[in-house]
Amino acid sequence: MQEILGTLSPDQYGLVYNAFSFGTAAFAAATLFFWMGRGQVSREYKTALTITGLVTFIAFYHYFRIFHSFDAAVILQDGTIEATGKEFNRAYRYVDWLLTVPLLLIELILVMRLSRSETVSTSVKLGGAAALMIVLGYPGEVSGGIDQTRLIWGALSMIPFLYIVYTLFVGLSGAIKRQPDDVKGLVTLARNVTLASWFFYPIVYFFPFAFDMEGSSSFVLIEVGYTIADITAKAVFGVLIYTIAVRKSEAEQSADPALQPAE
Amino acid sequence: MQEILGTLSPDQYGLVYNAFSFGTAAFAAATLFFWMGRGQVSREYKTALTITGLVTFIAFYHYFRIFHSFDAAVILQDGTIEATGKEFNRAYRYVDWLLTVPLLLIELILVMRLSRSETVSTSVKLGGAAALMIVLGYPGEVSGGIDQTRLIWGALSMIPFLYIVYTLFVGLSGAIKRQPDDVKGLVTLARNVTLASWFFYPIVYFFPFAFDMEGSSSFVLIEVGYTIADITAKAVFGVLIYTIAVRKSEAEQSADPALQPAE
Repeated sequence: MQEILGTLSPDQYGLVYNAFSFGTAAFAAATLFFWMGRGQVSREYKTALTITGLVTFIAFYHYFRIFHSFDAAVILQDGTIEATGKEFNRAYRYVDWLLTVPLLLIELILVMRLSRSETVSTSVKLGGAAALMIVLGYPGEVSGGIDQTRLIWGALSMIPFLYIVYTLFVGLSGAIKRQPDDVKGLVTLARNVTLASWFFYPIVYFFPFAFDMEGSSSFVLIEVGYTIADITAKAVFGVLIYTIAVRKSEAEQSADPALQPAE
Repeated sequence: MQEILGTLSPDQYGLVYNAFSFGTAAFAAATLFFWMGRGQVSREYKTALTITGLVTFIAFYHYFRIFHSFDAAVILQDGTIEATGKEFNRAYRYVDWLLTVPLLLIELILVMRLSRSETVSTSVKLGGAAALMIVLGYPGEVSGGIDQTRLIWGALSMIPFLYIVYTLFVGLSGAIKRQPDDVKGLVTLARNVTLASWFFYPIVYFFPFAFDMEGSSSFVLIEVGYTIADITAKAVFGVLIYTIAVRKSEAEQSADPALQPAE
């Protein structure tokens, strides 16, 4: 790993460095946006926005740590890249996902407003599967090489992944059909953004195999790829959750005359 | 202690390092969640959520300190572990527990909504026993070795521990039976999570004896074990307290017509 860092070109270094900084800023901004938005939705949706902001807050923390870990591990001095020998901690992403991915699924479930028992059981099932998926992917990621270890753990990790995809597409399709017309399209879009951004992760994970990439190109691809996927899955997805929460609050308030402002 | 740190393998180092970072992020996120949730419960339960968030906030502070203490004491450089000679401060955990464990018991008591005099007397009794338990465990923990000193102080610490367990199981069983049906199961679960996570601590404390473990494996086991126990006893337990507070608020509001919106 340290040898790979020493072979980065100045351009590759800049790309990774700025991707990490971009992630840090984007997640901090997203967090503040979601939490400030809590005041604009009705009580039923406040928890969904709290959690949407928690996901980006946790991601902000980890991108801040990743940025500083990278900054300590590689230096660009007088136009030359130098690995300091200090470890670049790749585990931060996995620690982040272990916390945020179950929460992301809970966001989606909360905004659908299922019955209380359905909310709890679906959250436990999907959250548990998500945690398992991440724990199984980790040994492959840190094995370092683009080798069989990565392939086997990656494949195992795909089992809970496909279970989640199946549940979102088939198990929750009834709940999506029951959404009010005004937001049905948005909820479907949120579900699809989850799936699309999530498929990006195994693609990044397995990509180096397909092109037999090693060394610095594979490093840059993985780090920049995960950053784009993270921003889509957490911040862009969060904006959809926010929009759904605002629209549903408005629709439910106008349907209930008791909640209308006095005229 | 410093010699043990120098014998960690890179994988062991990574596990401890990431467990501390995981704790830091989890407790920061949990704190924000509980404090934002204060707006969603009725006045009677706001103090319970304030304290739930205080517990995780204090834990966040200490995990941040523990992370940086570990980061200063051990370095992974060029794939090799090196102890810098700077002390890794193991006392942070005990300072943390001295503050948080009495508060954890008070959380549980507050959410049960006993009479005012019962709330005060039970809080004083259990909070005092909890503080005594931690003060007695400390000399054994910092004795460094897995030896008689650890065994004796550990055994003394078990006396207030068992008193708390007894009070939660027997003394508070009447109060649990009087809870509304909607939350009786949750309150029982919260009580049981307290007990299960608490039993984890003496197990971690005494574990090295059973397996005659010394050195780095015992260090990793203790640090990672306590981290898992802390997250369960403070953050997961806090989510239960939050859920109980939300449900009891909803139930009490719908039972009181004066709090219904005018029609």
